[in-house]
Amino acid sequence: MSDHSVYVTNQPLRQARTSWLTAVETAGFFRRRPQQTVGVDQALGRVTAEPVFARHSSPTYNAAAMDGIAVHFLDLAAASETDPVVLGTDRFAKVNTGNAVPEGYNAVVMNEDIHWHGDGSAELVNPAPPWQHVRTVGEDIVATELIIPEGHVIRPIDLGAMLAAGVTAVAVRIPPKVVIIPTGSELIPAGQSVQPGQIIEFNSRILGSTLTEWGADVEIHAPVSDDPLLLRQAITEAATSADMVVTNAGASAGSRDYSAATLGELGSIIVHGVAIKPGKPVILALIGDTPVLGLPGYPVSALLTLQLFARDLVYTFLGAPLPAPQTLEAIMSRPMHSPMGVDQFVRVTLGRVGDKLIATPSGKGAGSVMSVVRADGMLTIPAGSEGIGAGERVRIELVRSRGEVDATLVMIGSHDNILDLLANHLHRRRPPVRLSSAHVGSMGGIMAIRRGEAHLAGSHLLDEQSGEYNTSFIKRFLPDLPLQLINLCYREQGLLVAAGNPLRITGLADLADRGLRFINRQKGAGTRLLTDKILRDSKLDPHQIAGYDREEYTHMNVAVAIASGSADAGMGIRAASVALDLDFVPVAEERYDLIVPAAFARDPRVCAALELISGDHEFQQKIVGLGGYNLRDTGVVMYEQ
Amino acid sequence: MSDHSVYVTNQPLRQARTSWLTAVETAGFFRRRPQQTVGVDQALGRVTAEPVFARHSSPTYNAAAMDGIAVHFLDLAAASETDPVVLGTDRFAKVNTGNAVPEGYNAVVMNEDIHWHGDGSAELVNPAPPWQHVRTVGEDIVATELIIPEGHVIRPIDLGAMLAAGVTAVAVRIPPKVVIIPTGSELIPAGQSVQPGQIIEFNSRILGSTLTEWGADVEIHAPVSDDPLLLRQAITEAATSADMVVTNAGASAGSRDYSAATLGELGSIIVHGVAIKPGKPVILALIGDTPVLGLPGYPVSALLTLQLFARDLVYTFLGAPLPAPQTLEAIMSRPMHSPMGVDQFVRVTLGRVGDKLIATPSGKGAGSVMSVVRADGMLTIPAGSEGIGAGERVRIELVRSRGEVDATLVMIGSHDNILDLLANHLHRRRPPVRLSSAHVGSMGGIMAIRRGEAHLAGSHLLDEQSGEYNTSFIKRFLPDLPLQLINLCYREQGLLVAAGNPLRITGLADLADRGLRFINRQKGAGTRLLTDKILRDSKLDPHQIAGYDREEYTHMNVAVAIASGSADAGMGIRAASVALDLDFVPVAEERYDLIVPAAFARDPRVCAALELISGDHEFQQKIVGLGGYNLRDTGVVMYEQ
Repeated sequence: MSDHSVYVTNQPLRQARTSWLTAVETAGFFRRRPQQTVGVDQALGRVTAEPVFARHSSPTYNAAAMDGIAVHFLDLAAASETDPVVLGTDRFAKVNTGNAVPEGYNAVVMNEDIHWHGDGSAELVNPAPPWQHVRTVGEDIVATELIIPEGHVIRPIDLGAMLAAGVTAVAVRIPPKVVIIPTGSELIPAGQSVQPGQIIEFNSRILGSTLTEWGADVEIHAPVSDDPLLLRQAITEAATSADMVVTNAGASAGSRDYSAATLGELGSIIVHGVAIKPGKPVILALIGDTPVLGLPGYPVSALLTLQLFARDLVYTFLGAPLPAPQTLEAIMSRPMHSPMGVDQFVRVTLGRVGDKLIATPSGKGAGSVMSVVRADGMLTIPAGSEGIGAGERVRIELVRSRGEVDATLVMIGSHDNILDLLANHLHRRRPPVRLSSAHVGSMGGIMAIRRGEAHLAGSHLLDEQSGEYNTSFIKRFLPDLPLQLINLCYREQGLLVAAGNPLRITGLADLADRGLRFINRQKGAGTRLLTDKILRDSKLDPHQIAGYDREEYTHMNVAVAIASGSADAGMGIRAASVALDLDFVPVAEERYDLIVPAAFARDPRVCAALELISGDHEFQQKIVGLGGYNLRDTGVVMYEQ
Repeated sequence: MSDHSVYVTNQPLRQARTSWLTAVETAGFFRRRPQQTVGVDQALGRVTAEPVFARHSSPTYNAAAMDGIAVHFLDLAAASETDPVVLGTDRFAKVNTGNAVPEGYNAVVMNEDIHWHGDGSAELVNPAPPWQHVRTVGEDIVATELIIPEGHVIRPIDLGAMLAAGVTAVAVRIPPKVVIIPTGSELIPAGQSVQPGQIIEFNSRILGSTLTEWGADVEIHAPVSDDPLLLRQAITEAATSADMVVTNAGASAGSRDYSAATLGELGSIIVHGVAIKPGKPVILALIGDTPVLGLPGYPVSALLTLQLFARDLVYTFLGAPLPAPQTLEAIMSRPMHSPMGVDQFVRVTLGRVGDKLIATPSGKGAGSVMSVVRADGMLTIPAGSEGIGAGERVRIELVRSRGEVDATLVMIGSHDNILDLLANHLHRRRPPVRLSSAHVGSMGGIMAIRRGEAHLAGSHLLDEQSGEYNTSFIKRFLPDLPLQLINLCYREQGLLVAAGNPLRITGLADLADRGLRFINRQKGAGTRLLTDKILRDSKLDPHQIAGYDREEYTHMNVAVAIASGSADAGMGIRAASVALDLDFVPVAEERYDLIVPAAFARDPRVCAALELISGDHEFQQKIVGLGGYNLRDTGVVMYEQ
């Protein structure tokens, strides 16, 4: 197995899907489709295996639709205000709503229209058309009529219709049984502490619950280590007991990727390698009539290939209609390149800013679970395209409801730990506001406001000449835009260093003198400007600082680098050091403001955020709890234009 | 209780909702919101009760993103094609994807880019940027970062993110417990045979599973008969044990409507009577801090008032976002009147015919479960409007997916039992086609085609002069429309009479002679024309026929009237008599054709139907099994213009 004889092809997606579906169909997978009969009470959400016809009519008898009296309609034919008809007690019968209209009567007069005489006779002033206020037999459901067709997902109202028509049991499809086999010696169960080289096995939960949502009956196998014999044994057993098998990972052609060889020995490989990104090395195989999918290891690749190659199988096995994708048109906020010949699938976040719906590609790799958690939709760049330019219109397949997208407050700019708090508190509101925050530094935020792509931007740009924050940058880059600059907080900036500060770092000069490893923020970040100012003030050359060129995009990522020991110091806010139990060497207090364009000042999402920031005591207490914040000007308008 | 002291008000909907929500909030219902901690494996679909923060970063270590070797990036700084760098075995470490990059290394070179020397050293021709092919600590998730906010419905990907970040348990809301109490002495359990005056208790299944879908924990109480003491006892117990109580029915002011009096005694009535149609007599009450909804008895009224007054309560108790309604714009096919001052809710069916989306109000009463089963959406006619004219644009709230609406084939016209078969077979297709068929008679179908509101119309109109079917009517009413007339079947028409024909009816003359009770079809129906022709041929006056003025809209409804004994004979097709085990007195064979406008001849929905009709042997066999059909011309173009 150690010679890499596995050959991964690069089939076009459409061709791979056709080969796969044809092979699965030919193998008889869709003919299996077992069914069972369940009580109507147990049938919610199940898929009908046969059409359901009414066993009897509803109503089953001619029923009074009002409280009143049942009459012969002909008796009232001549009734009028001036010449009322008086019916003796033998010419009518009292009925309540739902009562059977007694034999021989054929209309109902409601109580409100009856004038009762002392002898119990009823005086009526209006004629009644035949069957007035009567629900006649079969008015709702006619015996033998089709109530719901085959292949229908049973809804609450369908249960009512079946019961009303005398149907108490219904034939439904049995869901396909799918076994998921996680593979890899590096996998450990969730909840254990993770050593370097170990990975928490979580893909199977994503894949399994996705299959569950589609209607499959899922079993998750214990992880199988990288041993071809164990893998062969697990797959063989699963292929016998289940309707479909999913392995994850080992699909590539690496030295420990045994899936393809094993599947080739046990059955036939239909496709190995599809021209998609991510997900290229996916394996589609059949063992007997059991489809086996060998999914790539990265979670985003695994989920995408499951969607592309397993979803149709589950729905078709169940005989249920595939839910139609919800799509909408958006404008790309930045260009996205894509290799020719490859269908590329891009997670995007969406935000409705002014009258534009903006789509921003996540930019994260196929290993990023959070990029899917945060995604609002999926953009497909087809094989024939080399990419999409900024400002181009694209069609996005939603993975979140349109309502949630419309309720999203888009904030682009500098990162601060308060934003997570803000996101949570906004989401707790009724109705919830969702905060989408992209951390691209203060200058990035100003540019996003300029392009009309964000409702708010967080900024802490110090103008060295004036000593002022933000205003000179606004005047330069957003000269004509009416806006307010509202203070969020003052915050302590300083050097994040390891817990206990074992290297006794006192400032940036230490790093240069002792050759310690720095980690920097990206260009355009306010913290980067602060770092550069301090270097200049201290007459230090950036080249003297090892790691000056290593850039991270958020305070927290800098803190993680320190905590994991891959750097000795980095500039960041105190809250980041508090969050990860690091030590903190204070350097400066700085002002962090929100840029609020006047056009969005009345937007309910923006109002909700500003209201929380300036008015919510509980929220402010939580901010103080993060460490390093001073709220003396919070909510104050620092500048307006 | 027998004096009607209950006063039902007519509060505007908005005001009723505000009073209700305020009262429920003031009572503390939304402050209760219990929570529990569950394992992440059990958390799919639950609502977070607290924000979830990352316990550790992911990756937890610097991980190789490729199979290859870990290197010092500085060692490769000078590498080039002409001047390769050769690393000895002490200057690199072999790594597979997912392995930890060993201490001191800071980039990975993939296998494909390595030229191996015999002594095990590695020759490289390209420099590597720092951290090339390395997933650095926290690249996906940073310790302490917000993964999902409070009030979020947990999805498959969220499970993965939580597990990746070391979170194995999560605080989720406990669903509100709702007890549903069906009331009424007339109620019997499903499955029993129904006597006149009895009603199968099915509302609780509709209401209960609707609440289940919203996330409530539902218990259905046994039906309580119309006894105020039993009702009081059941409500008292439920209000103590549950978070919310729903009673159904007894909300009106009828002699057996005890709900209002009972709720008034046990707690306080917030609202009784709302200016809506249907659903007016709804009762909204509080017993302590437990909301109690007294819903009206008709299923459509009960479901609508549940949606209007219980849905917010369930979602807010759970802290979950209310799903935003899907709406779309459609054109009304017929006018709909609505009383001023009343918010009227109208079930509509939708069909995309040509470039128009047509909304047709169901026209059925609040007792019709099938009108909800068949509905595609809901139209609200606001209190300030007197109605909506034909051709007006309206906004419809969808109750079915847009995809299903787009997949709907709209057929308007004459009724035939084949249409139920067709509906089922079309729905079995992949992708499914949904048949919406409105039975308004042959002339109604021709008019619908003329207005561009249907894809197909079924017609069997006999021109007495020419003896021909349909063509003269088409030439007269659709003179300029390119179309084909395609035969569906020939079918036997005759008199439907009771099983065994106890009255020995031989024809329409019998009815006139012996004063037997006839039931007729509506004007414009082909069967009505046939009846009239026979009467003329037999020189009979319609006034001689008792019940000539009693009209039904379908063959099956005529059959039901005969089967239930409310009429002695009616004209209809043999299939209707076969379906309900009636006797059949043949009168004529007639031709039933489909009118197919050329504009829709290539529509995939129309093609699917025509393909089934003309080409599917199994389908044709099923038609023959219905009885009374001859398929000698099925699928043949009888006329074209």
